[in-house]
Amino acid sequence: MQYVEEMLTSVTRQVLPTEIDAPSLRQAIAACLECQVICQMSADACANEADGTQLTRCLRLSLDCADLCVAVVRLLSRSGNTDVTALRALLEACASSCSACALECRKHAEQYEHCEICAQACEACARACQAELETRLEGPSA
Amino acid sequence: MQYVEEMLTSVTRQVLPTEIDAPSLRQAIAACLECQVICQMSADACANEADGTQLTRCLRLSLDCADLCVAVVRLLSRSGNTDVTALRALLEACASSCSACALECRKHAEQYEHCEICAQACEACARACQAELETRLEGPSA
Amino acid sequence: MQYVEEMLTSVTRQVLPTEIDAPSLRQAIAACLECQVICQMSADACANEADGTQLTRCLRLSLDCADLCVAVVRLLSRSGNTDVTALRALLEACASSCSACALECRKHAEQYEHCEICAQACEACARACQAELETRLEGPSA
Amino acid sequence: MQYVEEMLTSVTRQVLPTEIDAPSLRQAIAACLECQVICQMSADACANEADGTQLTRCLRLSLDCADLCVAVVRLLSRSGNTDVTALRALLEACASSCSACALECRKHAEQYEHCEICAQACEACARACQAELETRLEGPSA
Repeated sequence: MQYVEEMLTSVTRQVLPTEIDAPSLRQAIAACLECQVICQMSADACANEADGTQLTRCLRLSLDCADLCVAVVRLLSRSGNTDVTALRALLEACASSCSACALECRKHAEQYEHCEICAQACEACARACQAELETRLEGPSA
Repeated sequence: MQYVEEMLTSVTRQVLPTEIDAPSLRQAIAACLECQVICQMSADACANEADGTQLTRCLRLSLDCADLCVAVVRLLSRSGNTDVTALRALLEACASSCSACALECRKHAEQYEHCEICAQACEACARACQAELETRLEGPSA
Repeated sequence: MQYVEEMLTSVTRQVLPTEIDAPSLRQAIAACLECQVICQMSADACANEADGTQLTRCLRLSLDCADLCVAVVRLLSRSGNTDVTALRALLEACASSCSACALECRKHAEQYEHCEICAQACEACARACQAELETRLEGPSA
Repeated sequence: MQYVEEMLTSVTRQVLPTEIDAPSLRQAIAACLECQVICQMSADACANEADGTQLTRCLRLSLDCADLCVAVVRLLSRSGNTDVTALRALLEACASSCSACALECRKHAEQYEHCEICAQACEACARACQAELETRLEGPSA
């Protein structure tokens, strides 16, 4: 993620409001990007299992989680004028979805390696969303 | 949206939990699909204006709104096992983003027709998300 | 899709290059929006079937198709400066994916109503992408 | 991207067809993930410039490129049953869009640091898509 580092340094100087916490932002973007693709791959691996029925809930929660991660990355990449209420609610949605997905994945983690990896990525992403949420206080949006 | 009607009728019988309110779901999906594309087109029209600087905030809020609408459609299309806390927070995020975008668009609506149309689509979508939110009570997810 | 009509009329006058065929564009956007949500719902219904293994390929092709439809809507909503080579290749990708998904859905359409509906939406979308493709000739992009 | 490494190793053993080239796949996924967020941030920085009109084309091409990168990541994360014709066309679309965006960004790179970074990320992504394309030969899909 070399370019993301450079870009964040560049936009932090020129585009972002001064109250943005750049390290937290970088961490949240990186965690959501990774969780997005891990959840998509894990959902696909769930679909591929012969004994698929026990993984239906896992597959669905993974797809939801991936879609929320995509949305978080998109909103965080436009931090200058975001509606703070919407961003906070989205970060809460993503953190909750990551936790729900991790919880479900843990049930199958001994049997399926992809569920174990997905649980770890989701837990890391839930923490990063929560940390980012704590830097975005309610108030008049920019 | 003929196929959406048919599909919702079909999955309501076979896939969705009985507590799902099908008319509200249909309304929310239709409103978010339309708002998604309207916001993307309006953002593009904002970018195209020679006097772009006064539309920067409008452009950004429209892109945020479009991305949240895409996410809502995706989660609503998998209503069987969604994490209710995440879905509710996402619907709140989308309703707030729609309202913020509509408010900003209204400021430019006399000058720019695309802002007027975007404001209307966002207001309709905010109402549909709010209505759907009221049908999804907190509780143990399916 | 009342707002889409109004917006297309508005941007056709002010934003879009004169060579854009507005009825074909409207048709392609509407078909892709509908196919996007139908494929997402059909994939979810596939995941929900107890006898899921025979629907694994159907589920995956539906998710691919939905993602390509989302991308087509996004690029078509910014028709002013699109790289024509990229747009043409994406329309070809979407048309091919819709056809592949429809073909697979047809195999299960007698047993599963959601597969029948998905096949119809995919076939309509493949035609709309193909028609739009024929209006976008290679050449120097705007 | 530690989890992506682990997941790819895991699914390469269990889910992916043997003809998949895992290093190329990993490279393409990583490049598209990074390019997705770089293009979104660069588009936002373009929108933020006071002298926005000269960046309109740059902003639009960046948004197109981001959307194609998102689609590539999604399809590549489901490599088991993808329609090869669609995947190849999408990779071509993404490579072309990345090249067009890089070319435009280069015009503004001396003046705007975010355009320089975006050009580099797009060029790297175009190469990764092209390399992945060369591993996916036409033929009967899995």
